Amino acid sequence: MTTWLECINCGFQTDLVTERKFRCPKCGDLFDVKHDIPKKSTSYWMRLFDARLRSEDSGVWRFREWIMPNLPVPEKNIVSLGEGIVPIVPAGFHLKKWLGGSIEPWLILEGKSPTSSFKDFGMTVLVSVAKAAGVKAIVCASTGDTSASLAAYAGAARIQCAVIIPEGKITPEQILQAQIFGAKVITLPGPFDDCMTVLQELVADYQAYPGNSLNPTRIEGHQATVFLVAQFFKWTLPDCFVVPIGNGSNCSSIGKALHLMKSLGFKAESRILGCQSEAANPMFLSWQKAGGINTTREKWEAAFSPTKVGDTIATAMRIGNPVSYKKVIREITESRGAMVEASDDEAREAVLACAQGGHFVCPQTGIALAGLKRAINQGFIENGERVVVVSTADGLKFTHPFHSYFEGKFTRASNCQTETVANILGL
Amino acid sequence: MTTWLECINCGFQTDLVTERKFRCPKCGDLFDVKHDIPKKSTSYWMRLFDARLRSEDSGVWRFREWIMPNLPVPEKNIVSLGEGIVPIVPAGFHLKKWLGGSIEPWLILEGKSPTSSFKDFGMTVLVSVAKAAGVKAIVCASTGDTSASLAAYAGAARIQCAVIIPEGKITPEQILQAQIFGAKVITLPGPFDDCMTVLQELVADYQAYPGNSLNPTRIEGHQATVFLVAQFFKWTLPDCFVVPIGNGSNCSSIGKALHLMKSLGFKAESRILGCQSEAANPMFLSWQKAGGINTTREKWEAAFSPTKVGDTIATAMRIGNPVSYKKVIREITESRGAMVEASDDEAREAVLACAQGGHFVCPQTGIALAGLKRAINQGFIENGERVVVVSTADGLKFTHPFHSYFEGKFTRASNCQTETVANILGL
Repeated sequence: MTTWLECINCGFQTDLVTERKFRCPKCGDLFDVKHDIPKKSTSYWMRLFDARLRSEDSGVWRFREWIMPNLPVPEKNIVSLGEGIVPIVPAGFHLKKWLGGSIEPWLILEGKSPTSSFKDFGMTVLVSVAKAAGVKAIVCASTGDTSASLAAYAGAARIQCAVIIPEGKITPEQILQAQIFGAKVITLPGPFDDCMTVLQELVADYQAYPGNSLNPTRIEGHQATVFLVAQFFKWTLPDCFVVPIGNGSNCSSIGKALHLMKSLGFKAESRILGCQSEAANPMFLSWQKAGGINTTREKWEAAFSPTKVGDTIATAMRIGNPVSYKKVIREITESRGAMVEASDDEAREAVLACAQGGHFVCPQTGIALAGLKRAINQGFIENGERVVVVSTADGLKFTHPFHSYFEGKFTRASNCQTETVANILGL
Repeated sequence: MTTWLECINCGFQTDLVTERKFRCPKCGDLFDVKHDIPKKSTSYWMRLFDARLRSEDSGVWRFREWIMPNLPVPEKNIVSLGEGIVPIVPAGFHLKKWLGGSIEPWLILEGKSPTSSFKDFGMTVLVSVAKAAGVKAIVCASTGDTSASLAAYAGAARIQCAVIIPEGKITPEQILQAQIFGAKVITLPGPFDDCMTVLQELVADYQAYPGNSLNPTRIEGHQATVFLVAQFFKWTLPDCFVVPIGNGSNCSSIGKALHLMKSLGFKAESRILGCQSEAANPMFLSWQKAGGINTTREKWEAAFSPTKVGDTIATAMRIGNPVSYKKVIREITESRGAMVEASDDEAREAVLACAQGGHFVCPQTGIALAGLKRAINQGFIENGERVVVVSTADGLKFTHPFHSYFEGKFTRASNCQTETVANILGL
């Protein structure tokens, strides 16, 4: 069994563990990670992974033969914080009513990861590979969640870490996380896309090891979303995965995982619905321009161009030039999927409807839920279909849009007498 | 099989589903929930619960035959949000070094629950019983986590909910949670103990249904901590559970679960280490006064008296008169356990040491970790012992003590040039 990197454009191959720049030296395009995975029956894999449900402490490395089968000395190099142990829950009464339609909506709550965002799924793999490769320091550009996740895993691995973030554009909780986990934090006076440009040049010209999804090892870990959902539903896949798209790594990995399961003999025909904020919608705009539901990979790629981003409560999606746009295009078209966009108002409504049922999700998940509602209205999701929404972060990381919404919405009792409170309650 | 309530003092018995006041009408003391649990072999139970690891969506109801075996019409009345799907992780390098000793410390990260605190373990049971009992509205007094949890579960069950909280003493994140989950929020101009007094009188005199741990159904759900840990370690128990103590419900339930497992034939000899903040330490002070490690249940009960509470970063432990103090005394003495106290400075150090390894826990967990360090130094934990610390909430709910600590601790790049950032990083 071997693992290698392969250029998504020209097919050039190189070694994973010695790679530092993560750009094809022939054509400059991105790499995929490729593995030789042994041909076994579907029942072999189901038995293997189901047996690990007992006393298992990572919902990502549970699937290590599919995710990173050839990591050198795994018992020494795997850096795990208990990622992937996350609930998969049906949408509650209020959310279902808000969504409309008569579909079967579920959420995988990836915000219940160690650093409270889905980024941990990929970061555990990236940092484990970096540890195996003897990397001394890792740098990332981040809208917030990536920096927190990289800081946590690098800290656990005792690898130095620096994060580059756009000043004033990420939440105080997110900066605090990177700091408390021990990262060096650098802020730039520009949007996220400037941070990403700097990061790419640091990697190309200054020997920095990238913690961003430019580094495709992250994609391998995010595949666990699909594997966890499949295992939860007794090894069947839902009709559709609904994914918020910022840089696009999550969408890429869901597509990759579906291909893998199909190649191993599973029925893995889920469509991917990509959701963007109206304020940062390059994937949606180019998809629409290229023909929408009838587009092809080639047409969509030709139509793609970066956009300027506006303000949105979905700060983690404020990305006008997604690094993984080619992978997003490939995976959405190959899955017969679609793109939608949604507004901040719709996202806020979605978060509130979800919270009334007991789950406080981030505004990015709000965009995904609002996108699902639009897709139901447009007939992209049919009656009776099972849909899994990837909830990418905990609402507690993104409280700001709601503090002002609820400000003053409580009753101040004038004293501590029981009668006073009974009166307020109408008892 | 039946379930009933039994007074912890005089043994008076009454029905669970019709009870509304949760105080013994004979002597005024608290109730325990009691069940007839069928006598089966340990291997029967292990097989039953291990089989449910597949496609299971609640780590509490997984153990329903031990937790609430006689809930009427469970398929209709169980109100679950995916609670109890939480990682159990070894302490990282930095935390182990900080703790000292050569023990085997683990954390169960109950902050990765739906509302980001351990309260969900109990609340899922309380609200399910309330739903089965046809309760129309539930009220609780809270230092914050309880209100968020009750609001979420009551919302999911579509039962009205009101929460009474001490003004200015709980975090903005905690109030926001109760609001976003749809609860009516009432603030009182006094400490938590005043809120608790009002709640108790509302229950006694105004027919309010209590969401507090006065209602012993919560205790049943918190037992899942022990069952999850046992299952994780292939049905063996650790040498010690380390628990932060506020109102004491968590400690009571761990003791109860250990008794249950012992009665069913498991080796369940774990000791309980109760940890309090120096600012709110009635259990520690009375334990010490009553003879410390050599005390008895009777001596400790006699020595107990409420204390005034001071300020602490561990706001959820700011309780001078714990409702469940008698249960805490019973369970700690019966487990051959102990009490420790710890300071805010120690708790902050503990949270930082834990975060350097990738886990951001709440200040209450910081008190527990700092208590463990003191217990190691005092020889209460011996070399080689396996210890599980109950991490009660996510650090993201309690960011305030750390925002000021890290304020300004980042580097502001003067422009967006790569060279500028490379210089900052020394590349």
